[in-house]
Amino acid sequence: MSSAYEEIEQHQKKLGHLQHLAKILNWDEETMMPVGAGADRMESMSTLSLLLHRTKTEPKVGDLIQKAKTESQNLDAWQKRNLEMIEKSFRLSSLLPADLVERKTRASMTCQQAWRKLRAENDYKSLEPLLHEVVAVTRETSQILADDLGLSPYDALLDQYEEGLRQSTIDPLFDELQSFLPDFVDQVIDKQKSQRLTKIKGPFEVAQQEAASRELMKAIGFDFDRGRLDVSTHPFCGGDPSDVRITTRYDLNDFSSALMGVLHETGHALYEQNLPAKWRRQPVGQSRGMSLHESQSLFLEMQICRSPSFLKFAQPVLAKHLASKDTHALAYENLVTLYSRVQKSLIRVDADEVTYPLHIILRYRIEKDLIANKLSTKELPERWNSEMQSLLGVTTKGNDKDGVMQDVHWPWGAYGYFPSYSLGAMIAAQLFAQLQQNIPDALGRIEHGDFSFLVKWLRENIHDKASSQNSWQIIKEVTGQDLTAKSFIDHLKQRYG
Amino acid sequence: MSSAYEEIEQHQKKLGHLQHLAKILNWDEETMMPVGAGADRMESMSTLSLLLHRTKTEPKVGDLIQKAKTESQNLDAWQKRNLEMIEKSFRLSSLLPADLVERKTRASMTCQQAWRKLRAENDYKSLEPLLHEVVAVTRETSQILADDLGLSPYDALLDQYEEGLRQSTIDPLFDELQSFLPDFVDQVIDKQKSQRLTKIKGPFEVAQQEAASRELMKAIGFDFDRGRLDVSTHPFCGGDPSDVRITTRYDLNDFSSALMGVLHETGHALYEQNLPAKWRRQPVGQSRGMSLHESQSLFLEMQICRSPSFLKFAQPVLAKHLASKDTHALAYENLVTLYSRVQKSLIRVDADEVTYPLHIILRYRIEKDLIANKLSTKELPERWNSEMQSLLGVTTKGNDKDGVMQDVHWPWGAYGYFPSYSLGAMIAAQLFAQLQQNIPDALGRIEHGDFSFLVKWLRENIHDKASSQNSWQIIKEVTGQDLTAKSFIDHLKQRYG
Repeated sequence: MSSAYEEIEQHQKKLGHLQHLAKILNWDEETMMPVGAGADRMESMSTLSLLLHRTKTEPKVGDLIQKAKTESQNLDAWQKRNLEMIEKSFRLSSLLPADLVERKTRASMTCQQAWRKLRAENDYKSLEPLLHEVVAVTRETSQILADDLGLSPYDALLDQYEEGLRQSTIDPLFDELQSFLPDFVDQVIDKQKSQRLTKIKGPFEVAQQEAASRELMKAIGFDFDRGRLDVSTHPFCGGDPSDVRITTRYDLNDFSSALMGVLHETGHALYEQNLPAKWRRQPVGQSRGMSLHESQSLFLEMQICRSPSFLKFAQPVLAKHLASKDTHALAYENLVTLYSRVQKSLIRVDADEVTYPLHIILRYRIEKDLIANKLSTKELPERWNSEMQSLLGVTTKGNDKDGVMQDVHWPWGAYGYFPSYSLGAMIAAQLFAQLQQNIPDALGRIEHGDFSFLVKWLRENIHDKASSQNSWQIIKEVTGQDLTAKSFIDHLKQRYG
Repeated sequence: MSSAYEEIEQHQKKLGHLQHLAKILNWDEETMMPVGAGADRMESMSTLSLLLHRTKTEPKVGDLIQKAKTESQNLDAWQKRNLEMIEKSFRLSSLLPADLVERKTRASMTCQQAWRKLRAENDYKSLEPLLHEVVAVTRETSQILADDLGLSPYDALLDQYEEGLRQSTIDPLFDELQSFLPDFVDQVIDKQKSQRLTKIKGPFEVAQQEAASRELMKAIGFDFDRGRLDVSTHPFCGGDPSDVRITTRYDLNDFSSALMGVLHETGHALYEQNLPAKWRRQPVGQSRGMSLHESQSLFLEMQICRSPSFLKFAQPVLAKHLASKDTHALAYENLVTLYSRVQKSLIRVDADEVTYPLHIILRYRIEKDLIANKLSTKELPERWNSEMQSLLGVTTKGNDKDGVMQDVHWPWGAYGYFPSYSLGAMIAAQLFAQLQQNIPDALGRIEHGDFSFLVKWLRENIHDKASSQNSWQIIKEVTGQDLTAKSFIDHLKQRYG
């Protein structure tokens, strides 16, 4: 006879199977699905997510959890942690009525699908009522979670994306960045005025760009037997650890953004591909929260791949694939200049790593107020513009498509997610500082195309741990201290100052 | 309060949503999934199919069906038929124990995945035990169905793919073909010896072949807003009526097979895309059985697209896309000769329409004996070879990869499916004869690129009817008579004789 804990693992396995399929279907929706199939797909996915919710919250699971807790002296540390995670997730999911889950899924999918079209048309007015509904169901959900967890509603949302993350953690870190960045940005831009940059001139065929991307992905360690590279409007890393699918979008006139985007997503992908297979369908075997996940992509993109050392390695690969008449643009020195260029822009995903945190601080402030009901969706465009002017000195007045409508996150119902981008940048910098202490010639090895030591280090320190600890415990274990802004600010000064 | 029938429709809708997603995932497995993801995918799909089975056979559905039957005086003809279909499917599915369903899924997926590799290695010996297991669970399943339906096990399998189809229907039709074909094949081959055929010489880039395919698909009426064209090892039409996905495989040296394959699948696709949207997730709204489905692909491929009239229309499209130094090969007269070439071959999917039924008769005889336990999987290669020699005069001795291992159907657990290919060919011929009676200048219109009348005719006579009648009723309604081999034999004599 199997123990209560074993029965719970079996149940999680079935749940994990359905989640696996849902993730492949999400990827399909972004990359493959024809436009006219959206409405039917939304219906079907909505049924699947309702079913996932029901399966997760089957009453018998609650009984099994209670039984397993009384027998927990027989469990090892990972099993105990697994049981803890399952209990928390079961409890919180059970609090949410099925009709609320269905309303949330439907509101998010409707708003997300409308957003694609309305953003292109710069039509915030038509999006607003749909977004209002998404915010309303998110508030409703967050209040239910908050009451149970003894947290504020926004903290309850943060906790969903990164266990243990609170506004009280974020505020001092973001305050420190904000007191440093605006002046620093101006200094860097001023300094870079005198640097000569040869503009990239295309066209670069998609097949050429893709071939260069694939060669670099392979060199770093992406396993194409268990993953894919495709095209989507909004680049992401999706799929399942057994089948990791990253996407990018190619600009025929300039390879540089797609290439770095691919390397960014490769950082996410390595994390997923290297998770312990033994725990594949159990919560404790999943990647940890979004901040730690983003640290993996930014570690690869910002700390490694934008470094002069990596660019020295990558330059011949790019020169081989990207036939260009203008060899100046593809010269090593020019790539270094290109990939450390700083400028104030409207669009977060196009921002460099120096101005990026300002885009995040803006979103963090606004979404806190949205969830706390201090701000309505009607007031969003104006508030966005005024924050943008104060943080970056640029305006989005009358240009909502490049303002409040630029990201899918809010239409999609992801509130409390944005901070993870800048927390990830800070974690990445702190991890890289630690790597350099452990392996002083790390950058030298990378220059010679050796990535195996790097993936091994990430694997041992991050990937192998999966969710056996929360991100803050993992960071402290690896770097010997809590997360601070210091390594990140040092990194910016060193690279751009 | 909703009626029992309405509740059943709601339940079917949820089931239909999950089936929709399963079909997209099947497509993904054939076209997109990386090789190393197979084992994990099999686990997850197995959980989904178990869940589909459980949802389908929820005991409350049985009660609702009984209740709805007592209230059926309020239902219209389509609703009554829908209820009938649901009841039959519920009853038969409920007879199958969950562990048998899971064993069947697992055995089929294991065998199918192994087959891909083992076929390439011509290794029947390693496939045999896996195939044995698939046959065993199929026998077990068919016996359970047979007992309920009062049919033989093989008839019970036929009935799953085409309601109402029996061996007693097939036998006289196949006997008639077999008494006509072997001699006719020899005559045609003899006659064609004197016809001059300029061999197709490539290379034809994939992008060119795809562009030509797409242009013809669009001209005929495939809706790319609700469908896709991709590449897979084994061409098929998959996905969902809201999102129909056809595949082909390109040969760089010869466009002709991929092109006709695309047009064949387009016939299937038109049927799916034109099903009544109002009944999308209900059984009565689905395409009818496999024979009728195959009639739609063969109607388009064999009756329309291989006709001289269509080739006259298609020739300039091909010439435009398929840049070739050798204009003789792409000349209209040469295309007509090419697309009516008859030869004895080992491979069913490469066979022309004259020899094709002989490949089917062979499989029909063998699988009847397999299911009736008169033949073991160990004896298959020998039996295959001896049938092949007697029907087509060719041998597969020591060449199982081009013999018994050539098709995915048996590894996949599809027994009772093969007859539908040749029944489809006969139905297509009978339908086309009827079309020509209704619209005498049909071929003339096609020569001028007019397909809308054709799709309209198919829509009104076949597609719109969905599953409101069985295929045999539909054929009789459209053509005024039961299915016979006459139109098909007349068609062969006219085109090849």
